Amino acid sequence: MTATIHRLRTGAEPSLNPMIALVAADMNAVNQVILDRMQSEIPLIPELAGHLIAGGGKRMRPMLTLASARLLDYGGNRHHKLAAAVEFIHTATLLHDDVVDGSDLRRGKRTANIIWGNPASVLVGDFLFSRSFELMVEDGSLKVLKILSHASAVIAEGEVNQLTATRQVELGEDRYLDIIGAKTAALFAAACRIAAVVAERPEGEEAALDAYGRNLGIAFQLVDDAIDYTSDAGTMGKDAGDDFREGKMTLPVILAYARGDEEARRFWRDAIAGRRASDADFAEAVRLVQASRSVDDTLARARHYGQRAIDALGAFANGKAKDAMVEAVEFAVARAY
Amino acid sequence: MTATIHRLRTGAEPSLNPMIALVAADMNAVNQVILDRMQSEIPLIPELAGHLIAGGGKRMRPMLTLASARLLDYGGNRHHKLAAAVEFIHTATLLHDDVVDGSDLRRGKRTANIIWGNPASVLVGDFLFSRSFELMVEDGSLKVLKILSHASAVIAEGEVNQLTATRQVELGEDRYLDIIGAKTAALFAAACRIAAVVAERPEGEEAALDAYGRNLGIAFQLVDDAIDYTSDAGTMGKDAGDDFREGKMTLPVILAYARGDEEARRFWRDAIAGRRASDADFAEAVRLVQASRSVDDTLARARHYGQRAIDALGAFANGKAKDAMVEAVEFAVARAY
Repeated sequence: MTATIHRLRTGAEPSLNPMIALVAADMNAVNQVILDRMQSEIPLIPELAGHLIAGGGKRMRPMLTLASARLLDYGGNRHHKLAAAVEFIHTATLLHDDVVDGSDLRRGKRTANIIWGNPASVLVGDFLFSRSFELMVEDGSLKVLKILSHASAVIAEGEVNQLTATRQVELGEDRYLDIIGAKTAALFAAACRIAAVVAERPEGEEAALDAYGRNLGIAFQLVDDAIDYTSDAGTMGKDAGDDFREGKMTLPVILAYARGDEEARRFWRDAIAGRRASDADFAEAVRLVQASRSVDDTLARARHYGQRAIDALGAFANGKAKDAMVEAVEFAVARAY
Repeated sequence: MTATIHRLRTGAEPSLNPMIALVAADMNAVNQVILDRMQSEIPLIPELAGHLIAGGGKRMRPMLTLASARLLDYGGNRHHKLAAAVEFIHTATLLHDDVVDGSDLRRGKRTANIIWGNPASVLVGDFLFSRSFELMVEDGSLKVLKILSHASAVIAEGEVNQLTATRQVELGEDRYLDIIGAKTAALFAAACRIAAVVAERPEGEEAALDAYGRNLGIAFQLVDDAIDYTSDAGTMGKDAGDDFREGKMTLPVILAYARGDEEARRFWRDAIAGRRASDADFAEAVRLVQASRSVDDTLARARHYGQRAIDALGAFANGKAKDAMVEAVEFAVARAY
């Protein structure tokens, strides 16, 4: 008997398209739930929520719920409502994040807080968050409710942790991993895990899908954080250098600081403290990050977690769903090339 | 047979003390749950949450859950966790409200957003909100989850409705009642209703407790809104004139505007639009509100809803619990005298 070894490819040009095609019909149903359930008699709510929800996001998290359900050959439709609930949690988080960070650009569009103000963004986020729990309650699985309410609390903890880590140049890689594990990977993990719950699969498969989502989420965030030091605003639809100017300690900076000489360390201390925020300072930051190979090695870390995500799928049957989920990981870690 | 008619007293000096005494032992248990479950490995979370939670609030909403359970002779302890969940929802709402309003004083103390900033207040609010759902999930009643997730969505809708009503001088009494019914009364109603759910009482008693809470909540908010035009900062622990300066259309203003002559209306149009916000302007606002008997009639409206709250208890057995719940209404509507 020969083992099937899915090895992370890095040379090819992997794509999210197989996963998008795999779940296309299901995603139509999810989009219908999303559109139906973001309605309200208060016109500002669908207006503001719709700006972000229709704003060209990849629907990565609900897509993971749907793909995981396909991997398990789930034949029902409970996951449509739950995938919409996952997207609502994510959207609420984005609305609050943009208020917290004072961001003015997301996915290439002006953020809701810039258009409608911070108060509206905070409150519509609260509405979507409540609505996501209403959707889960309608589904009626206490197990799903437990997974997603816990994930939501962990996300909020991760965001507070990140906030208190801001402008702390001595932040190490471990604490950084704690932060992204909570703020990003927890919802990826939960989105995958709940598919196993609705498909009534054994605990081992739940845990495997959780591991797939968690490692993919970490890889995804590592690449996002690397991109902030490699690209211009166009690639991500956000302002390049945002993390830098906000004094966020992401892995490229953590590595560049750890590897830097005294002059480089002085630069990072000043920059992270907020005393060097010009375009020239950002150019210098990019130069230091590149010179210390910190972006390359952030991406190497991403590939490590990506390989773990792929290996977590080992116990599942080969086929279109698994291939698409493997390629989604390859896509996630290849984005920065 | 003689009917027992509980008539709203207005001459005496009603007190919240009978209700506080009624639930004292239960409230100790609730406070323990609150303290346990606001903990986190991220120190800022219990620090910020504790500032507000330990900050001298009346715990009105969890107290209503406990008192309602006593009214029904409920003998279990499930309501302790659920009352804590209700208080977490309320605390999350207060944290976000103070960000939305830019408030600097609550319950006589500096607000969390002033001490720790808006980002921390938004995120810790999100944490408490998630944690409240975790508590409900632990209890395991889908019916309670449905009631409280729906109430949370309604609260958020009410807050957005209020936001879009800000500085709209033409806002009428109906829309104002919609707003306070959602932002305040929905949680009062839910806090009472869930006691009937855990006590496994028939739908009619659920509805009666819901009506008690809802009408009490409306009365409570009406009196709060009246107080803003009658007292100095000391009485409420917030800045007098806050509503006025924020351009909030509360009932005293709605009545004063409706009853005013052309000069008064011009004043209100300018003031609500934000063009008259000095101390002298506020003094003029108080004069106009008093001259048009708008505070008196706001309080008369509060007594109407208070009487409805009391009458909603009609079907329940007389006794200490009912007496305390009646007197709590009397206390709520008498606060402004």
